[in-house]
Amino acid sequence: MGKNIVIIGGGAAGMSAAAKARRTDPSLNIVVYERSGYVSYGACGFPYAIKGEIAQVEDVVVRTPAQFAKQNIQAHVGHEVLTIDRAAQTLRVRERASGAETEVGWDALVLTTGGAPTRPPLQGIDLPGVFALRTVEDALAIRTWIEQERPTRGVIIGGGYIGLEMAEALAAHGIALTLVERLPQVIPSLDPEMAAHVQAELEQQGVTLRLEQAVEVLVGSERVREVQVAGTSIPADIVIMAVGIRPSVTLAQAAGVTLGPTGAVAVDDHQRTSVPNVWAAGDLAEAHHLVTGRPAWVPLGTTANKQGRVLGENLGGGDARFGGIVGTVVVKVFDLEAASSGLSEQRAQAEGFEVKTVSATAGSRAHYMPGHQPIQIKLVYEATTRRLLGGQLVGREGVSKRIDTIATALHAGWRIEQLAELDLSYAPPFAPVWDPILVAANLAK
Amino acid sequence: MGKNIVIIGGGAAGMSAAAKARRTDPSLNIVVYERSGYVSYGACGFPYAIKGEIAQVEDVVVRTPAQFAKQNIQAHVGHEVLTIDRAAQTLRVRERASGAETEVGWDALVLTTGGAPTRPPLQGIDLPGVFALRTVEDALAIRTWIEQERPTRGVIIGGGYIGLEMAEALAAHGIALTLVERLPQVIPSLDPEMAAHVQAELEQQGVTLRLEQAVEVLVGSERVREVQVAGTSIPADIVIMAVGIRPSVTLAQAAGVTLGPTGAVAVDDHQRTSVPNVWAAGDLAEAHHLVTGRPAWVPLGTTANKQGRVLGENLGGGDARFGGIVGTVVVKVFDLEAASSGLSEQRAQAEGFEVKTVSATAGSRAHYMPGHQPIQIKLVYEATTRRLLGGQLVGREGVSKRIDTIATALHAGWRIEQLAELDLSYAPPFAPVWDPILVAANLAK
Repeated sequence: MGKNIVIIGGGAAGMSAAAKARRTDPSLNIVVYERSGYVSYGACGFPYAIKGEIAQVEDVVVRTPAQFAKQNIQAHVGHEVLTIDRAAQTLRVRERASGAETEVGWDALVLTTGGAPTRPPLQGIDLPGVFALRTVEDALAIRTWIEQERPTRGVIIGGGYIGLEMAEALAAHGIALTLVERLPQVIPSLDPEMAAHVQAELEQQGVTLRLEQAVEVLVGSERVREVQVAGTSIPADIVIMAVGIRPSVTLAQAAGVTLGPTGAVAVDDHQRTSVPNVWAAGDLAEAHHLVTGRPAWVPLGTTANKQGRVLGENLGGGDARFGGIVGTVVVKVFDLEAASSGLSEQRAQAEGFEVKTVSATAGSRAHYMPGHQPIQIKLVYEATTRRLLGGQLVGREGVSKRIDTIATALHAGWRIEQLAELDLSYAPPFAPVWDPILVAANLAK
Repeated sequence: MGKNIVIIGGGAAGMSAAAKARRTDPSLNIVVYERSGYVSYGACGFPYAIKGEIAQVEDVVVRTPAQFAKQNIQAHVGHEVLTIDRAAQTLRVRERASGAETEVGWDALVLTTGGAPTRPPLQGIDLPGVFALRTVEDALAIRTWIEQERPTRGVIIGGGYIGLEMAEALAAHGIALTLVERLPQVIPSLDPEMAAHVQAELEQQGVTLRLEQAVEVLVGSERVREVQVAGTSIPADIVIMAVGIRPSVTLAQAAGVTLGPTGAVAVDDHQRTSVPNVWAAGDLAEAHHLVTGRPAWVPLGTTANKQGRVLGENLGGGDARFGGIVGTVVVKVFDLEAASSGLSEQRAQAEGFEVKTVSATAGSRAHYMPGHQPIQIKLVYEATTRRLLGGQLVGREGVSKRIDTIATALHAGWRIEQLAELDLSYAPPFAPVWDPILVAANLAK
């Protein structure tokens, strides 16, 4: 008999771990318990399923429990783990539909419970028509509400990635939108002057921005009817709560696992927690940030998949290491692309770096090519060592994969001068002869 | 009085050198002699001007002599340098229109004469309707021929970048095309199985391919009428000769400058030649290849601009170094993008490396997003050290800037395992959660 592996949470991290562990060691018994009705889905696709660009919400599911079963991985959906006994190496799990409880033993426990949307203590937050977006069920509920209730006015609370993607999704249904953000800007990973381009795009697309304003109460009786913001009332037939997520650490704490300075589970580069035979990966866990050299909590699907894969290999007796993150993100906001990697100027200052920056505007293609668009670029570097600390790009094309060059330079720990030397691809339809990254790097003093 | 700088050749390298020298040292006297009627143009734009995507051929000109004059740079077009006296530090130049000759003294001589299209000794190569593409005048002549002669059948000789871009350009005018290539594949920087995707696209777009066949003679009396290839006759109202370029080293040799192993001018990392006070940059010159560690001749606009800038700074008393190349290229072939950086498998073997490769097909976007396209990727690495030696990408979107990640990794001298750790950007409209680069790197054995 092989070892009993129990994985709690069937998202990207959990199922990557399961699949990689199975490939690494065929003798393992691998069981996954997932609270929701689905495993292995690309949650980042939900806004596009709600928008209607993807035909069915379920299309974002990568693999079903039946498909995992063929790989000899038992994935139980609709199962909630209640308690963990670390000493006995057991846990209690309840099948949500029947209420039946079971005690299960484990040789290795994998915590991949992910994150959960932050729920501010707002009156009216439980009204029908008020939604968060995290699970397949959430996405289905929003899509059903749009189809059945035909909302015409909406409020999005939160100007992070999900809030902005949901703005595009709801606007596609002709819903007039107000976006409320507590901070003075959208997308906190961008510096204010870069976020301003995103804000201009939102306004140009007809979204009313209420920055530096807080929601006071959600009003309605049988369903939401309006949102009170900074003393004024905004009529709304649909409200999206997108004020961020928190790591779901309740079970981890029950298992006695140490949390890191960010509040997420501390892990080493093998994805081990502080408790022997207990592992963690994904949105629940911290990651080593290569720019700051410290643990960070940047919950993203890419990191969840990579950490899960490392964890799975190690479960199977391997010696895999997770190399760390530089915090690369990209988001589509209507016709605009905004991306960043590493630290913004504000964040770098907060981390204690002595910071210099350089900004430029350069074309996405050769200046004589039709369709060329300006790309705004900002590079952040350390004044003393001239080490690149981060980069930001905003534009209508050519942003998403261009940020990867900056991400790669951050992994390499380069000085900004090294960026300027790069032999980057050039052809008139794709780039100017001086790529925006080279233009900016060349301007660095 | 400042030093007299004389620059021979007003292309990207020469004019970048002039502009940077002027900014670095305002006291310099800077004179440029250019044989053709134009300076400072983006030659890579010509196919798109001929296609009609760019309104006027002259739109690719970045700056005119009049604009350079305002910067106190004298750029003389239509001037041909005849001889160089290295000991006396003089040269003879002829104004082509009047035939007037002048002797000019120089304190520093800059050779940026570029390259010239290879002209095979073919009967009929001088017939009207047979064109090479290098200068503004060439592009204007092709465009005029298309407008006035309305060719319906064309032959392109050579399957490199210019040949392929010209195929797209001529096809846009409804010209039925045959492409003849001496080698068994198009785009020699790609391995055969990657080039096969490009060949399939050409055939799908209606281009008849004649690979591993040689042109024997161009037939016609007042103008070209047909091309004889491998014993058969192809009717043609227009023929594009695109069999490559050679560095224009005649003047460099007259100046006594040493050529490198590639046949181009040998330069150090400051763009100095073997002769004191004589400098070179651009398509005329070699560059240090960071993957092989040896001089290479990869004539590209990006390198010409960078080398020119380094040269210009040094002319002004600076201490700039050109960091070298990794040979990054991208080309659009109808609806396909093909890119490479570093060495192909074939080239790496020829360079004496013990080579391993890994290939994969992965999506340009999340699998559930409409419009996602397969990207073919191949990575080449050294068997012993596992150092990345090169990468190739072919697909209908997301290829051009994705290759830059591989280029950056080549600059950094990474092992293939380091590629797999990259924190690359992800959002469903732009990439799958496992970017094609990560997919391939993870498969490396």
